[in-house]
Amino acid sequence: MPEIHQARRALARQRVAELGADAALITKGANVRYLTGLVSSNAAVLLPADGAAVLATDSRYEGTAKRDCGDVELVVERLVEPALARLAIARGMLALAFEAYEMTVERHAGLAELDGGPLLLRPLGQAVEELRMVKDDAEIDLLARACAITSEALERVLSRIRPGVTERELAIDLERAMVDLGADKPAFDTIVASGPNGAIPHHAPGPRAFEAGDLVTVDCGARFGGYHADMTRTVAIGRVATWQRDIYQLVADAQAAGIAAAMADALVADVDDAARELIAEAGHKEHFSHGLGHGVGLEIHEAPFLGPRKAGTLRDRVPITIEPGIYLPGTGGVRIEDTLVVGAGQGAAGSARSLTTMTRELLVL
Amino acid sequence: MPEIHQARRALARQRVAELGADAALITKGANVRYLTGLVSSNAAVLLPADGAAVLATDSRYEGTAKRDCGDVELVVERLVEPALARLAIARGMLALAFEAYEMTVERHAGLAELDGGPLLLRPLGQAVEELRMVKDDAEIDLLARACAITSEALERVLSRIRPGVTERELAIDLERAMVDLGADKPAFDTIVASGPNGAIPHHAPGPRAFEAGDLVTVDCGARFGGYHADMTRTVAIGRVATWQRDIYQLVADAQAAGIAAAMADALVADVDDAARELIAEAGHKEHFSHGLGHGVGLEIHEAPFLGPRKAGTLRDRVPITIEPGIYLPGTGGVRIEDTLVVGAGQGAAGSARSLTTMTRELLVL
Repeated sequence: MPEIHQARRALARQRVAELGADAALITKGANVRYLTGLVSSNAAVLLPADGAAVLATDSRYEGTAKRDCGDVELVVERLVEPALARLAIARGMLALAFEAYEMTVERHAGLAELDGGPLLLRPLGQAVEELRMVKDDAEIDLLARACAITSEALERVLSRIRPGVTERELAIDLERAMVDLGADKPAFDTIVASGPNGAIPHHAPGPRAFEAGDLVTVDCGARFGGYHADMTRTVAIGRVATWQRDIYQLVADAQAAGIAAAMADALVADVDDAARELIAEAGHKEHFSHGLGHGVGLEIHEAPFLGPRKAGTLRDRVPITIEPGIYLPGTGGVRIEDTLVVGAGQGAAGSARSLTTMTRELLVL
Repeated sequence: MPEIHQARRALARQRVAELGADAALITKGANVRYLTGLVSSNAAVLLPADGAAVLATDSRYEGTAKRDCGDVELVVERLVEPALARLAIARGMLALAFEAYEMTVERHAGLAELDGGPLLLRPLGQAVEELRMVKDDAEIDLLARACAITSEALERVLSRIRPGVTERELAIDLERAMVDLGADKPAFDTIVASGPNGAIPHHAPGPRAFEAGDLVTVDCGARFGGYHADMTRTVAIGRVATWQRDIYQLVADAQAAGIAAAMADALVADVDDAARELIAEAGHKEHFSHGLGHGVGLEIHEAPFLGPRKAGTLRDRVPITIEPGIYLPGTGGVRIEDTLVVGAGQGAAGSARSLTTMTRELLVL
């Protein structure tokens, strides 16, 4: 689909021109993929403010680049960044915007010292990430497929959540189910946190065996066509104590409030607040220690980021997660997370549509 | 094993002192792990030239750090680098060596602007990577276990290499076998390259089904206890054409020559040359397009790197791969790779000992 990539490059070029740079040197892999379609661990793009883009990659990816990116000029070199920087110099483009949050000090020094320069290197900011926030139909389709695989995979392994099975065993079974259902691979390392481990938001699945009376939090996602799903469910084993049911209901209510607030033009801080306030009012302010959610797409964590001190607004067609949690140190925790698409035409009455479809009711297994 | 980490920090401190820096700010995850034992996706170490180390990580890793790194001062902050840089300033350590190949331009600018500075930031080079090259007994044990899992896993799935099975199916089965045998996870994305795909050194396993007459190259490794194995075998299906047997034998001979040359004090370029010359003499110089091998340890690719223009010498107790290949565009390829430990006492007569133990004979399945 070269037209899609051409259109994306046209928008990015505007940002380069606004910065007053002659060109941008795009070095982050997800951004190179977004602007050209090339999937490569070693590639970069030179994007002039006024002129055609140049893609550089090494000989391992030459065939793929010729097949998929026939609409851009191709440079085949092992050291892609100096190759493009030299080309920029040769073409008189000395004012070069670069991705300062990705470029290392050492690589930057190498570019600054090239013959024919000095290049005037200035930060591009997160220009391409900002473009990537709003997804087109093809992107939303890929994300929806990733989310459907995720939901089905977790449903498929629910019967394994029983006393005696370990966190690690469940994580392995779940990741295998995602791949069996067509995922490229897991979108991230699966989290399975049982009993007291549920109090650790990013617990790595370990040898602990599930016990009756546990809450078990499973945070998982499939990657499909390069797009990352993200979903969390917390389930109970055998019985549910009152404190467990109470915090589950509170987190579910907070999530519903966050989802209801996740409209186009809403401030991300307000969306976070809608969920956080319910948790704080119930006396658990300090037990919800992370942001409410984040964008998903070619990266598992990407713009926008939803948190109390974050800036920006939501827009139509922006996929985000909404994932409040309550973590009681030494005791346990609950998190409920869905991947949703913001905006009119997505859900009823302009609300966000959930791409992850598994029930949010508390399952007692 | 705090003594091991203390000893490592003592050696690293010498390098900091030699540079004339007051302290080093270590930000690369594998280096933080090496110097403290902490496994964290968000941690850094301040290592004074003269004084005790300070470890910073966020609240998710606080418990682990207290348990495993009781011998270092601990700072719990989300933004670990500014936290340690401020501490350095407060303690009068303004000349700070940093890992310029890892630190981004943006993070570097943030450190340079801290109140109380300016910090005098200078590159540390690959000081910790150089220390990491020579492994201790515990490290070699972990690597040997990773290599044993890798060999056993590939042997276990050999029967799946038959007409009709796809590259991707084999890759999935092999990765699952490694985990079933106790691996943390695969050390990297498994390569399965069959028939003409064998000409692509880093081919991603795809939907191609194996056919009789194929050569199939499988490049795989298990990670165990954080240490990375790396092994490649090329096998034939059904029958072997003369050209296939010829290049297989040539690659096997080149690998044997490389292994024989991989002695302590050998120049890495000479080791590369020992293997490369055989391939060049047979007229395949341009069909062996990558270096002969690389170090393995806490990273899958780490120092030393073996190639025609690389500098440095091998030493006792340095684990490396030896992995020559011949790639015939559009036709197919062969690569044979083992993970070995260099040095006296490792193999017979001072030669390198192979940790990957699967046969190197051409298997016809």
